[in-house]
Amino acid sequence: MKQKVAFQGEKGAYSEIVTMKYFSGEEIIPMRSFQDIFRDLESGIVDFAIIPVENSIEGSVNEVYDLLLKSNLWVYRETHKRISHCLIVNRNSDSVIKSVYSHPQALAQCRKYIQKRNLESIPTYDTAGAVKLIKDSRIMSAAAIASDRAAQLYDMQIVDYGIEDEKSNYTRFFILSKKQIKTQPTGHDATSIIFSINHLPGSLFNILGEFAKRDINLTRIESRPTKEKPWEYNFYVDIAGHSSDTIISEALELIEKKTNFFKILGSYSIESC
Amino acid sequence: MKQKVAFQGEKGAYSEIVTMKYFSGEEIIPMRSFQDIFRDLESGIVDFAIIPVENSIEGSVNEVYDLLLKSNLWVYRETHKRISHCLIVNRNSDSVIKSVYSHPQALAQCRKYIQKRNLESIPTYDTAGAVKLIKDSRIMSAAAIASDRAAQLYDMQIVDYGIEDEKSNYTRFFILSKKQIKTQPTGHDATSIIFSINHLPGSLFNILGEFAKRDINLTRIESRPTKEKPWEYNFYVDIAGHSSDTIISEALELIEKKTNFFKILGSYSIESC
Repeated sequence: MKQKVAFQGEKGAYSEIVTMKYFSGEEIIPMRSFQDIFRDLESGIVDFAIIPVENSIEGSVNEVYDLLLKSNLWVYRETHKRISHCLIVNRNSDSVIKSVYSHPQALAQCRKYIQKRNLESIPTYDTAGAVKLIKDSRIMSAAAIASDRAAQLYDMQIVDYGIEDEKSNYTRFFILSKKQIKTQPTGHDATSIIFSINHLPGSLFNILGEFAKRDINLTRIESRPTKEKPWEYNFYVDIAGHSSDTIISEALELIEKKTNFFKILGSYSIESC
Repeated sequence: MKQKVAFQGEKGAYSEIVTMKYFSGEEIIPMRSFQDIFRDLESGIVDFAIIPVENSIEGSVNEVYDLLLKSNLWVYRETHKRISHCLIVNRNSDSVIKSVYSHPQALAQCRKYIQKRNLESIPTYDTAGAVKLIKDSRIMSAAAIASDRAAQLYDMQIVDYGIEDEKSNYTRFFILSKKQIKTQPTGHDATSIIFSINHLPGSLFNILGEFAKRDINLTRIESRPTKEKPWEYNFYVDIAGHSSDTIISEALELIEKKTNFFKILGSYSIESC
């Protein structure tokens, strides 16, 4: 039986390109929102999901971080994809382009390009969805920002390639599963945790010390509001290495004892695609 | 001569309400984008600006953090405002509401409310701007999410109050100035810094140790991509206390020596409004 694999957006979205790379031959399902994906993955309707967690220019995808906190899902793998945006218009149109439709993150990644051309930015829920929208509504005075695959799929015209402000534009994706799939260390692994601590001088320092004294490299630290109480935070920390390494499992055990809330999102390999 | 004070958005925006509280009698100027405000403040066209930096539910305003990094402006004061959203429609309309217009942060803060009513979210560049839009375009099948002041200003009808998902919904605003205005400690102060460090085990721990060993409370830590190199970060750290306190100035001096990049955004009092 084919496995069901979900991604957010329309066909042609960057997430779909990543999904096809890892799950070709499986049933690939586009979904409208991250919330829908997390719900269907938790209830077992789908088996895996490909979710963007961070972009090298725009930073974290906040909504995903909040959903990871509340759900009981596992990070099975991480993969990085270079993002290159195209400016896409309807075929056989000679209208002047006045506005541009895309996902807010893509608009932000092309901010300088859009300003230089004095275009109005119109946010949509998805990059490929923006292409579909200007096609279906025959909007001739607007362009969409999306992948070249989206332009091909909807038979639209690419007028400009590589329009992102910074060429080193990468997105980190997590492959999520409901079941905890035991991964083996590959030599290029990371472990992600979430925790909250008391609001005291030195409390975060005290936690990070467990990593520092074992020479464990902290690759990322992010704080997100707890939402229950203003200006209280959950910390999202990524470290280099796999939890099957006793040095890492020892540090995590000690940290769990020092925190009010503690959760491991997974130990997984990091790849590029 | 009146001072010129800028905020982002249309009249009736939450930022305007804060601006009027601190600068009544001065010339208050609505501006379309944060980028415009930072440019005009740096070039001396305006004297002050009121800028939202963080919401207690949605987290940091990423674009503002990126602009603070690149600009040479000073944080003169911080103020917290409780945010309460209204659902606003055109007067004398009996159409069924199918969609809702507002700033992406406001839409995110009312996510549950919007889902329960099965409304389509349409992002706009400003909350009060959404009210103006559905009025000017006479859109009867849509509502806007904004302040009660925005409803009054545009003579629109409020159909629901307090529609935010969490009642403890606060926004932190910075009052920014071009000139460095020497502030006096008030007993309720904070100091904000930005720094970058080498990607080595223990390097962040080593920095935070300078605060921990002096019992200085770290109130916030945030990382943002440097944009030059993928997965390298600048750290934004807020600590409790004023830099005129020798313990704090000593810690900052030592930290400056350990970092690749170091910048003080300001030492300022924290208030509520």
